[in-house]
Amino acid sequence: MKDTRTILRETRAALGALTGARAKKNEALERIAARLESECAAILEANRLDVEAARTAYGDVMLDRLTLTPERIAGMARGVREVAALPDPEGRVLRRVERPNGLVIEKTSVPLGVVAIIYESRPNVTADAAVLALKSGNAVVLRGGREAFRSNAAIVRAIRLGLEDAGLPPTLVGFVEDTDHRSANELMEAAGLVDLLIPRGGAGLIRRCVENARVPCIQTGTGICHIYVDASADLDQALDIIENAKTSRPSVCNAEEVLLVHRDIAASFLPRLHDRLVTEREVRGAVPVELRLDPRAAAVIPGVPAGETDFDTEFLDYILAVAVVDGTEEAVAHIARHSTGHSEAILTRDGKNADLFTARVDSAAVYVNASTRFTDGGEFGLGCEMGISTQKLHARGPMGLEELTTYKYVVRGNGQTR
Amino acid sequence: MKDTRTILRETRAALGALTGARAKKNEALERIAARLESECAAILEANRLDVEAARTAYGDVMLDRLTLTPERIAGMARGVREVAALPDPEGRVLRRVERPNGLVIEKTSVPLGVVAIIYESRPNVTADAAVLALKSGNAVVLRGGREAFRSNAAIVRAIRLGLEDAGLPPTLVGFVEDTDHRSANELMEAAGLVDLLIPRGGAGLIRRCVENARVPCIQTGTGICHIYVDASADLDQALDIIENAKTSRPSVCNAEEVLLVHRDIAASFLPRLHDRLVTEREVRGAVPVELRLDPRAAAVIPGVPAGETDFDTEFLDYILAVAVVDGTEEAVAHIARHSTGHSEAILTRDGKNADLFTARVDSAAVYVNASTRFTDGGEFGLGCEMGISTQKLHARGPMGLEELTTYKYVVRGNGQTR
Repeated sequence: MKDTRTILRETRAALGALTGARAKKNEALERIAARLESECAAILEANRLDVEAARTAYGDVMLDRLTLTPERIAGMARGVREVAALPDPEGRVLRRVERPNGLVIEKTSVPLGVVAIIYESRPNVTADAAVLALKSGNAVVLRGGREAFRSNAAIVRAIRLGLEDAGLPPTLVGFVEDTDHRSANELMEAAGLVDLLIPRGGAGLIRRCVENARVPCIQTGTGICHIYVDASADLDQALDIIENAKTSRPSVCNAEEVLLVHRDIAASFLPRLHDRLVTEREVRGAVPVELRLDPRAAAVIPGVPAGETDFDTEFLDYILAVAVVDGTEEAVAHIARHSTGHSEAILTRDGKNADLFTARVDSAAVYVNASTRFTDGGEFGLGCEMGISTQKLHARGPMGLEELTTYKYVVRGNGQTR
Repeated sequence: MKDTRTILRETRAALGALTGARAKKNEALERIAARLESECAAILEANRLDVEAARTAYGDVMLDRLTLTPERIAGMARGVREVAALPDPEGRVLRRVERPNGLVIEKTSVPLGVVAIIYESRPNVTADAAVLALKSGNAVVLRGGREAFRSNAAIVRAIRLGLEDAGLPPTLVGFVEDTDHRSANELMEAAGLVDLLIPRGGAGLIRRCVENARVPCIQTGTGICHIYVDASADLDQALDIIENAKTSRPSVCNAEEVLLVHRDIAASFLPRLHDRLVTEREVRGAVPVELRLDPRAAAVIPGVPAGETDFDTEFLDYILAVAVVDGTEEAVAHIARHSTGHSEAILTRDGKNADLFTARVDSAAVYVNASTRFTDGGEFGLGCEMGISTQKLHARGPMGLEELTTYKYVVRGNGQTR
């Protein structure tokens, strides 16, 4: 098993082959898509072993995330071709100035270099991450989770065959075989070898990165997402949006965790909310949502009294914390105290309140009259995504191709001195 | 003396007054400029005490950096007005898409929040940093060096009076009175209170930030800048550029530290270099440049044999390390091994070599036929600057107003669910 620093050095050494080979990138992606298709049986077999080994230890949701099918692999290959079809993020001239002294300064987008990603369970991240990195001119080092190890290895093998088919070094995609904490820490500490580290996983992994990383690192994912229902909201629409944001996929980071309701509509709206999320779901055999209520909400509908941490918890489950607020200002203040900066929404027909909310809420995505579930690279039109940044530096929200580039200033002169 | 976290909390609390007060920003800057002028005598008196106290401990260069004059203060006020005249970096719609489902997604530039800066000696940084931060909608916490403490305090007092004149809270500009390591460390550790920390100082400070910071942090400044003289260069022009890059201001980060010379011109060019940087400067009473030569250069001209660390040292002095290389490829490889990613130049009349160099050299600024000394916010047309980033994440090269913003996605819908 190769040690992490050796893998990083090999990957970095391969980077040169990609510089100035921009024309080859799309060919490589096409070859990779073809190899994912032709290696489908081998990938499925590796995945079958992973799923078998995981069956006793993991729940259904997790097993579903882990499992590949011929359709999912076809989807993976299709995703690769979609990324190939996107505009090249390299070499864009972001600004051009000609100075009075004749210097021509071009701020030009360039790849970051070596991008490393630490991720869990879903093997399709392996293909997504590799392909986004390559399309943007980067080399990539992948460090997936133990439970998907065989699947990831098989996918990486197919990707590398594709790179070789296109005449590029297979080491452009590094693969860390060690799935221990140790290798994650080694990536965090590899200053000078990693240009960007993206931890994509639970809160514990993100925290370790923030505290220990000596390489540039982007915080992703944790989403305590709020929806605020203003007094002027269309309440029918509000019920649809809230049910969608909470229940369409409770395990993901853009799912709603907290609902804030304007006091003027609390008495009329909360009973309808309870009907929609609890009673009606029970009737039709869907999982009912557990409502954790602040005292003002609890005065109107039945539910669990909210505990101290309920407004600071990413439940990732059929649980919704509910509070009544005096208005948009209080909603904004609540969000400022409790949000993780991922996605928040206001439901309103009052333009002034919408403007106040979008101006004041300091999160990656701020919605007016739509579900928070749209915070996603595909839904934003970026192709697939490398993760969703909840920090403000460099990238915010879904990270697509542009977010995997930096820039440099290319300055052309004819002898200028200062 | 207020403790650092209290100052940070006050500054963060003031931030709300700036949100949605974009129209007031320029008025505030005008008031600040006026106060810098009207408080000129008080600032000069405070500065006189700083300079007096520093006289025994510091050299001439340092004392010059510390000293304010009526002209320098007038320049400071002029700088504030120049920043006011720049376009507002807030609220730019960086990308707008309307999705097939009707969602309108606007990627919109917004302030980072609270920007903190740790800096040394030059008191004009106090005004530059505060004004860049305010113009971009941020609050700022300033932590200057001990030697300029009284000057900085007087400048901050003037700035705060200007803020009050404009009806904004003076606490938008926080001032850390403790100039110990301790307060710098407190800023590095204030996760959640600092949105961006910019250490602007020696290599030791930058290293401590990279190793210890738990807040987002941008590495600045260290510049081991290279100039490569290609075989096809205009050698007269090359001598002008090299002398300028090395001697016009040796103590700054964009000064040249290493010269690489193509082997085909080494025999003809190096003696002219020696004449220009050593002999002629001695004759006219200028400080001669000490040449530290690799063996191939030492075979042609007299000089000090380069030691092991000479090609990895930011001399910030009248010292130049010189090596002979086989061509552009070797120059690029040398730079990849030894550069700090600040600024590098190729001097050439060969377009192919220029393209190779600009494509392959991975630094913030890459020059063709010009001095590295131009890497500077003013020279790049950004107004003054907050520092020069040598990292790739978020900002690279001179940081002006745009680099003090992040973005958020404002998404408007009419009931969309996913």
